[in-house]
Amino acid sequence: MRRGLAGFTLAVVGGDRRAVYTAEELAGRGARVRLVGHEASLPGVELAEDIKAGLVGAEAVIFPFPGVQERGEIETPYGVLHLEEEDLLPLPRGGLIFTGFANPYLLQLAERLGLKLIPVADRDDFAILNSIPTAEGALQMAMELLPVTIHGSQALVLGFGRVGKTLARMLQALGARVTVVTREPAERARALEMGLRAIDFPALRGCIGEAEVIFNTVPALVLTARLLKHTRPDVLIIDLASKPGGTDFEAARALGRQALLAPSLPGKVAPKTAGRILGQVIAEIFVQEKGLSLAARA
Amino acid sequence: MRRGLAGFTLAVVGGDRRAVYTAEELAGRGARVRLVGHEASLPGVELAEDIKAGLVGAEAVIFPFPGVQERGEIETPYGVLHLEEEDLLPLPRGGLIFTGFANPYLLQLAERLGLKLIPVADRDDFAILNSIPTAEGALQMAMELLPVTIHGSQALVLGFGRVGKTLARMLQALGARVTVVTREPAERARALEMGLRAIDFPALRGCIGEAEVIFNTVPALVLTARLLKHTRPDVLIIDLASKPGGTDFEAARALGRQALLAPSLPGKVAPKTAGRILGQVIAEIFVQEKGLSLAARA
Amino acid sequence: MRRGLAGFTLAVVGGDRRAVYTAEELAGRGARVRLVGHEASLPGVELAEDIKAGLVGAEAVIFPFPGVQERGEIETPYGVLHLEEEDLLPLPRGGLIFTGFANPYLLQLAERLGLKLIPVADRDDFAILNSIPTAEGALQMAMELLPVTIHGSQALVLGFGRVGKTLARMLQALGARVTVVTREPAERARALEMGLRAIDFPALRGCIGEAEVIFNTVPALVLTARLLKHTRPDVLIIDLASKPGGTDFEAARALGRQALLAPSLPGKVAPKTAGRILGQVIAEIFVQEKGLSLAARA
Amino acid sequence: MRRGLAGFTLAVVGGDRRAVYTAEELAGRGARVRLVGHEASLPGVELAEDIKAGLVGAEAVIFPFPGVQERGEIETPYGVLHLEEEDLLPLPRGGLIFTGFANPYLLQLAERLGLKLIPVADRDDFAILNSIPTAEGALQMAMELLPVTIHGSQALVLGFGRVGKTLARMLQALGARVTVVTREPAERARALEMGLRAIDFPALRGCIGEAEVIFNTVPALVLTARLLKHTRPDVLIIDLASKPGGTDFEAARALGRQALLAPSLPGKVAPKTAGRILGQVIAEIFVQEKGLSLAARA
Repeated sequence: MRRGLAGFTLAVVGGDRRAVYTAEELAGRGARVRLVGHEASLPGVELAEDIKAGLVGAEAVIFPFPGVQERGEIETPYGVLHLEEEDLLPLPRGGLIFTGFANPYLLQLAERLGLKLIPVADRDDFAILNSIPTAEGALQMAMELLPVTIHGSQALVLGFGRVGKTLARMLQALGARVTVVTREPAERARALEMGLRAIDFPALRGCIGEAEVIFNTVPALVLTARLLKHTRPDVLIIDLASKPGGTDFEAARALGRQALLAPSLPGKVAPKTAGRILGQVIAEIFVQEKGLSLAARA
Repeated sequence: MRRGLAGFTLAVVGGDRRAVYTAEELAGRGARVRLVGHEASLPGVELAEDIKAGLVGAEAVIFPFPGVQERGEIETPYGVLHLEEEDLLPLPRGGLIFTGFANPYLLQLAERLGLKLIPVADRDDFAILNSIPTAEGALQMAMELLPVTIHGSQALVLGFGRVGKTLARMLQALGARVTVVTREPAERARALEMGLRAIDFPALRGCIGEAEVIFNTVPALVLTARLLKHTRPDVLIIDLASKPGGTDFEAARALGRQALLAPSLPGKVAPKTAGRILGQVIAEIFVQEKGLSLAARA
Repeated sequence: MRRGLAGFTLAVVGGDRRAVYTAEELAGRGARVRLVGHEASLPGVELAEDIKAGLVGAEAVIFPFPGVQERGEIETPYGVLHLEEEDLLPLPRGGLIFTGFANPYLLQLAERLGLKLIPVADRDDFAILNSIPTAEGALQMAMELLPVTIHGSQALVLGFGRVGKTLARMLQALGARVTVVTREPAERARALEMGLRAIDFPALRGCIGEAEVIFNTVPALVLTARLLKHTRPDVLIIDLASKPGGTDFEAARALGRQALLAPSLPGKVAPKTAGRILGQVIAEIFVQEKGLSLAARA
Repeated sequence: MRRGLAGFTLAVVGGDRRAVYTAEELAGRGARVRLVGHEASLPGVELAEDIKAGLVGAEAVIFPFPGVQERGEIETPYGVLHLEEEDLLPLPRGGLIFTGFANPYLLQLAERLGLKLIPVADRDDFAILNSIPTAEGALQMAMELLPVTIHGSQALVLGFGRVGKTLARMLQALGARVTVVTREPAERARALEMGLRAIDFPALRGCIGEAEVIFNTVPALVLTARLLKHTRPDVLIIDLASKPGGTDFEAARALGRQALLAPSLPGKVAPKTAGRILGQVIAEIFVQEKGLSLAARA
C-alpha cells in the first residue's frame, strides 16, 4: 500500500497548509503530485502555474477541504483562484474530484463532465481519523482556558459518536472524571465498557452543575438556556458541533458563562496531521476506485 | 431508574446461576420477583412452585438465556421444566417474554397469545455489555494456557465489532502488542485512534507468523488451513465466534496447533456479572416498553 | 481529614493567584485563614492589613511558593511587602513557616525565633502531585507548537523521575510513541512495565533523530551540542528541568532548533490546581507536625 | 546489547522450566550456554553431563531461582543434583554465581573460592520486571475465583511498591475500581496521579467492607482479624507477600473468608516470561560486571 499510488498523477489545488501536507503524503505513497496555488519544495511534488496545467495527465484532483465556493472560488495562501468548467477538461471521464464538502457548483460541474465527486468529510473512516486532531484541539483549548488541570476535573462529553468517543477516551486518559451523555443505549454500554460514566439526556440536568468543563459534539440544540442555568458560574463550554453548534450561546452570554464554538480545529491545531489524514484517506479511496473501474472494464 | 421497577411483578423461570443474579438485580430495582426452578433466599424474591404459579400477576417473564428448547423444555439446576401454552395464560395481553435467543416454539406461543417476545442476545447494548465478561473469559483462558504473560506478547484480534473492541482494549491495557484485523476502514480508523495497529485481512498472511495468541471474533471461516500453516507452532488460538467458530479446527489439529472454540464464556467465568447485565438490560427494555404502552393507552 | 484543620489559624502571605487557592483549600479543611496582600472574598478567609496583623493568633504562615527574596521582599499582586523579624513575633515557639524554597534570610529568621521552616518544593509527595500540572503544561506547550498531534508523534522523555513518569504516562495515553531515557535499570524496568520503550543514555544518539518532540526533566546537561546535531530540523525541545535546564540552548539556536526552557509551569497553566495541591500538602504536614508536638508534650 | 554476550560461556544448572528459557535468552544474546540437569534442544545451548563439566570454561553459573538448598541440593526436573566445592573449581577467580536467593552454604562456598554471589531476587530492576508475571498471575487467580468480572469490581491493593504499582495499574486498566492503601504520602501521590483512589492504613477499616477482592503485597500482618471482620462474606483475598503473607489466615478461615497465599506466581503462570526476565537481568549484570573488572584490570 505504501507505494500504492506509483504510476498515477494527482493534482492538489488550493487550500491552506493542510493541502501541502496532503500533497506530501500522496507523493510519499508514490504518486506524481502537481501542486497549484502553493509555494513548496517537496520531493515528488511539482508546482503548476494554474489549475488547468496542474490537471493535465492527472487522474484525480484534490480541492480544498472546506470546498470550492459558490461561484468556483478556491482559496490559496496567495489569493483566490477561479475554477472554470474548462479547467477540468484534462481529467479523464470517470476522473475523481476530492473535497471535504460538496457544493452545488461543483456537483453540477462534475455531473456535466462525467466526473465523480467524492466529499470525504462525512465518510466514517475520515471522520474518525479526523476526530484525533479535533479532540486534541479541544483539549488544548481547555488547557489554555481552565485554571485547573484536566486531571481531576469534572468533564461532560455530550454525544458519543466519532468525536465524542475519541475525546472522552483522551480526557479519561489524562485523569479527568468523565461523564458521557448520549441517548443511545448501545453507546452508553460502550462508554461503560471503557470505564466512563454514562447517562441519558434526561439525567443531564441532575449532574450538569458539577461540570467544570463541558464539550458538546451533538449537532442540535442540547445546551438550552434552561440547562445552562444549572451550570457552575466558572464552567467552560467548548462546542465542537458544526455551526451553529448545540449551545444557546446567547443564553450563555447572558448568564456570564464562557462558551466557545470551535469548529474546524484540525486545520488550526495540527495542519500537518490533518493534511496527512486527508492524504491517507484519499489514497485508500483512489486505490479502491481504480480497482473497481479496472474490474468494470474487464 | 434504580427503583424504576417498583410496582411491577416479573417472573424468572429456570436457567443456570445467572438467572438467580438476574432476579436479584431486578429485585434491587424495586420489582417484585418470582423465581421458578431455583432454591435461593433473596430479598424481594419469592420462590414459586411451578411456571404458572410464578406468572400469576406478572407483567413479564424471563426465560433462560440460551432459550427454551424445541418442545418447551426449560433447564434448571434441579431438572427440566416443560412450558405449556396454558402456563403463559396469566400474562396480560402485550405481556413481555424475555430470553437470550428465540426459537420457533416460543415464537408461535407468543404470537398465539398476543405476547411480545424479546430476544436480547443480539441487541447492541446487551451485546456490548456482555462483551466484558466474554473478553475477560478469553483473557483468563489465554493466561491459563500461555507460557508467557499477556504483557509483551504479540496478539491478533480478528474482527473489531462488539467483542473485538473490548478484547483489544483489554489486551492493550495489559501490555500486549495488539494487531486488529478488520475489513472495515472505519473500524481500522477507530483502532488506530485507540493506539492499536490495524490491518485488513489481505495483510494478515504477512504478519500471522508473529502472533503468540490469536483471538477470533468473526463468525465466518477466516482462519483457513492456508493461513494456519503460517502460524507459529506454539500459537494459541481462542475462537470466540458463535458455533462453529471461524477456525478450520481440523486443519489446526493436523498442524498441531492449539485451537479452542470458546462460546458462552460470560455464564461460565462470571455468572454474577452476566446475570446482572441481563437484569439491567431487561429493566431498561421493560421500562421503555411500559412507557410506550402507557403512551399508547392515553 | 477534610475538616482536620478546625480550630487552627493559618496565615497566607503574598504570592500569586495560587496563594488565594491555597487559602481556599485550607479554609475548606476547616482552618481559620488570614490572607495578606490579596483582595479576595472567600468563605472562611479574612483579609489582614499587614503581615503582623495576619499572624496574630496563627500557628503557621504560608509564604509565596518561589520563596521570600534576599532581603525579605515578598511579592503580591499589588506590590512588594517587606518581611521584618518582628512581623514573625506573633507566631508561637515551634510555629511553622511554609514556603516552596528556603533562602538564607528566612532560614536565619526561623532559627533565631525558634520557628520551623518547611520548604515543600522538594518533598516527594508534593513534587509528585505538582508533576501533574507540570506535565499538562508541557503537553499544552507541545500542542500549541507542534504542527502534528501528540497522537502518533515520536516523543522522547529524558529522565523518569517524578515529572518524567507523569509526563510519559500522559503522552502515551494520548497516543504518542514514547521512548524514555534513563540511566537507572529499575526505572527502565518500570517504564517497560508501563508499556513504554526505555533506553539508557548511551543509546540516545541512535534514536534521537526520530523524535518530533523531546521533553527533558534531567537537571544536568544532557542535550549537548553533539546530540542536538542529530535531531530533526523541525524537532521541538521542551526543557522542564530547573534553571538552567539540561539543554545546550546556544547550540540549539545555532542549529536552528526550537528549544524552550519551561520552568514553573503549574502556577502558569493551572494556578487553581497548583494552589490546591499546596494547600493539601501543607494541611497534611501541619496535622502531622501538630500530632507530633502533642505527643511530645504528653 | 542484543549480542552483548558473544564470546562468553555461561552455565545454567538445575531449576524448573524457567531455567531452560533463561538459557534460551542468554544464548539469544550471543552467549555459549551449557545446560545441566535438563533435556532440551535449543540453538546455542549444549547439554552437559554434570555440574563440573558444565562449568569448564564458563565465566558464570546460574543456579535455580529459589536457590541452592542447605547442603547443596539443586532441584532439576529429573531429580536432585548435589553441589560440591570442587564443582565450582573450573570458574575463574571473580567468576559470578547467579541465583534468586542466597543461602549460607552458597555464600560460604563463594567466599572460600573468591567467587561473587549475586542474588537477583531483591534487585529493583528484577523485582519490577518480575512484578509483571506476578500481577498477571494474581489477576488470573481472581478471574478464576470471582463470580464477577474484574471490570466494575471493587478492588483493594495493600501496598504500592514494586508489585502493588503493577497490579493496581492492571486492575484499573481492566476496569476495576481500585483503592490503593499505603502509608507513604509519596506513594499515595503517585497513585492519585495514576487515577487511583489512595488511602492510608487507618482509613482501611472504613472502606474494607466494600471490597470484592483484596490483594495484599505488604510483608507484615496488615489483614488482622479485627479488619477481616469488616469484610464482605464473599470477599476474595489474594496474598502476594512472601511467606507467611500479611493475612491472619486462621482468622479468615474462622470467619469463612476465602483467603489464599500465592507466592512464586511467575514460575507457575508464565515460566517462559519469568525465565526470560531472569536471562535479561543476568545479561545486564554480567556485562556491567565484566566492564568493571576489565576497567579494574587496566
